[in-house]
Amino acid sequence: MPDQASMASTAYMVNGFDPGTIDDLEPEMRQHVARRLQVLGPAYKLFYRHPVRFVRAEGVYLYDAAGNAYLDAYNNVPSVGHCHPHVVEAITRQAATLNVHTRYGTDLLLEYAERLTATFPAEISNVMFTCTGSEAVDLALRVARFATRASGVIVTSNAYHGVTTAAAEISPSLGPEAPLGSQVRTVAPPDPRQDREQAGQAFAARISHAATDMKRHGTGLAAFIADSLFSTDGIIPEPAGFLRPVIDAVHAAGGIFIADEVQPGFARTGESMWGFQRHGIIPDLVVMGKPMGNGMPIAGMAARAELLAEFGQKIRYFNTFGGNSISVAAASAVLDVIEDEKLAENSRAIGTALRDAIAEAAAGCPGIRDIRGAGLYVGVEFADPQTGEPDGKAALNIVNELRERRVLISATGAHGNILKIRPPLPFSYRHVDQFADALRGSLASLATRK
Amino acid sequence: MPDQASMASTAYMVNGFDPGTIDDLEPEMRQHVARRLQVLGPAYKLFYRHPVRFVRAEGVYLYDAAGNAYLDAYNNVPSVGHCHPHVVEAITRQAATLNVHTRYGTDLLLEYAERLTATFPAEISNVMFTCTGSEAVDLALRVARFATRASGVIVTSNAYHGVTTAAAEISPSLGPEAPLGSQVRTVAPPDPRQDREQAGQAFAARISHAATDMKRHGTGLAAFIADSLFSTDGIIPEPAGFLRPVIDAVHAAGGIFIADEVQPGFARTGESMWGFQRHGIIPDLVVMGKPMGNGMPIAGMAARAELLAEFGQKIRYFNTFGGNSISVAAASAVLDVIEDEKLAENSRAIGTALRDAIAEAAAGCPGIRDIRGAGLYVGVEFADPQTGEPDGKAALNIVNELRERRVLISATGAHGNILKIRPPLPFSYRHVDQFADALRGSLASLATRK
Repeated sequence: MPDQASMASTAYMVNGFDPGTIDDLEPEMRQHVARRLQVLGPAYKLFYRHPVRFVRAEGVYLYDAAGNAYLDAYNNVPSVGHCHPHVVEAITRQAATLNVHTRYGTDLLLEYAERLTATFPAEISNVMFTCTGSEAVDLALRVARFATRASGVIVTSNAYHGVTTAAAEISPSLGPEAPLGSQVRTVAPPDPRQDREQAGQAFAARISHAATDMKRHGTGLAAFIADSLFSTDGIIPEPAGFLRPVIDAVHAAGGIFIADEVQPGFARTGESMWGFQRHGIIPDLVVMGKPMGNGMPIAGMAARAELLAEFGQKIRYFNTFGGNSISVAAASAVLDVIEDEKLAENSRAIGTALRDAIAEAAAGCPGIRDIRGAGLYVGVEFADPQTGEPDGKAALNIVNELRERRVLISATGAHGNILKIRPPLPFSYRHVDQFADALRGSLASLATRK
Repeated sequence: MPDQASMASTAYMVNGFDPGTIDDLEPEMRQHVARRLQVLGPAYKLFYRHPVRFVRAEGVYLYDAAGNAYLDAYNNVPSVGHCHPHVVEAITRQAATLNVHTRYGTDLLLEYAERLTATFPAEISNVMFTCTGSEAVDLALRVARFATRASGVIVTSNAYHGVTTAAAEISPSLGPEAPLGSQVRTVAPPDPRQDREQAGQAFAARISHAATDMKRHGTGLAAFIADSLFSTDGIIPEPAGFLRPVIDAVHAAGGIFIADEVQPGFARTGESMWGFQRHGIIPDLVVMGKPMGNGMPIAGMAARAELLAEFGQKIRYFNTFGGNSISVAAASAVLDVIEDEKLAENSRAIGTALRDAIAEAAAGCPGIRDIRGAGLYVGVEFADPQTGEPDGKAALNIVNELRERRVLISATGAHGNILKIRPPLPFSYRHVDQFADALRGSLASLATRK
């Protein structure tokens, strides 16, 4: 069950700027923030105690108006690097040539769809395009509910799957004011400290139990959905393989297994193109998004063809901008770069180096309980050395110390106590060194302050 | 109440290609369609009996691989013209410079937000960005339901508002297999043959009645949502002003009035930037999309600030690609072009010329019951001359005859009997002549066939 107290603390976003502190900002930023509040309203949040403001970006660096470079160790959307020339060229060429929707034929769309589905197991042979991961999740829910004629959905305690009405209803991490759907059940995420067999069996048992309880309340199970990195639950990539008994439990309860690949997809984990492949499973539906077009809005849902057959016959689905030519050109260029620059291999090698460097920097720091990750998706868990309690404050302080050193990360988990380190994939050993230096400085500064 | 029989006939989309006729296509197109069915699955529909396939576009023309030019009298997404150089330049420049989300500050985002809200009445001073009109509608529903603590929504009989779960539930035009939400009521659209007073009062009475009925069933009214052109209900722009009693009726029932400006917005109607302005009302929430970025995915919701205040405090809303720098740069360039090329004025003048030219071409054609529109959004209604029954087949034949003459339009309405003519805004008198010639030929061909 979700921890209500911790969820309440995340109703305001982890690492969100508090507009109540606007008077502490320097004049120029204060004015910028005031203008934002005026026109964008309170639903828009900035990152950091001292928000950042950028004018250009390149590779793994963002630059402010004064020309200061910020090392980007956070953004997985510009996954092949900010303003990658090959992607920029594809966008530029396509924008000047043709941009149409999917009700007219284009070779571009077909070729990309074929190329994308070729990265999946043969069972997953259909793809549909949306603009955002939220839309892809929402579509997957529609398909799962249509196919099963059931409405129940199981998610993890602090899951996040998007912001449409239906996606927000399965996203407990949005906090207690964003209500979960009455057909939604939450289960605790896998325990990263158990072995694969234990973690998998225990997680599968929780899902079976939730499905049974749901049925007793008259609701059938439509789907279980999870991101195989369990990002918002605190980054739980290991022990890989723990999803194997889970998919069986979901199928046994009549549900559909939806792999949310918005976070792990597109070679992020360094071991495979898709996160579910690390677990040795083949999902029924796959949703993808963020890194797909390196920042151009494109997302999608891949599916077993048999799951889409009746839905496609009976339900009209047209997403005006979904699969538009410019976004598809960008997405195709992203696949080129992942291959050409061997970014999966880089993610694995540099991810390992990054975790090692963090471990070295953190040596002798009793507040760090765990360092874990897969490829360039790394979590660093903070806990109080005396009580063992999650220490979200320490993590947040590090996030802000790093920001003062012009290194960008954020934090995650139900208690916000896990550093979320997720740089663009062309991160290098040099960037790891820069990151580790900044982390050492931040940890030292925090220790002094205590 | 929706006409179930007619809705069943639109479960398959008006003007959708029927894959059952694939063997009638020429070999190259047959192969293209077969590849699409293989990888995109059956949910993807092409337009026309003989689908079209394009390789480039410019202004109001699309070109196939053989170099044939098709006059675009349909697409409102490339609203300032396909591949407009000013928009292409903005995309190109921004893609090479910076593309970030809204949790970092950029002047670009603020300046565009301020410029956009300046086009609204002063009461509507906040804006939030999404990627698609569906997401904007979905967000508006979340805000309306949060603000009213009610869930009921009223829409017109053949409304279309999007494809997310929540948007599809208020979109009867998706057909009977896409279920309406249990808290959704439909009302007949305004009657274009009544005068403003009659049409408005009768429409308002239907809404009040639906709200009362809803309350008797225990559901409060959250919102009434309508596109002021009533596009999918058959294009009902006149008599402008009929929405005045409607907004009062919605407020009296405790609901929020959501103006869906995805179709009429951005100067389409030739009379004002926004469709609701033609009616002399100020909505509570406004959703916008399609033409906003001339094909770059960007959409949004504008709001009375007081409606967003509590929602923004309590609910975190972050749309990764919503308001991304490239889409915002494109959207800003679109506003430039609308101003610089006086596209509202052009839409009004050319829209009038187009309706006149259609009337002239249609003279002596008993199957055409009405020609109506606002600016470059024109509907031509077909009815059986003997029975007066809506004649969707005649409209569809014209759509396909025009396509054979390389002129692109489609059809709309619950019976698919209304031609939907909605070209990019830089349409000129020359294009009107070309359109009218093709229409004359198509009508003659249809008359011969009968």
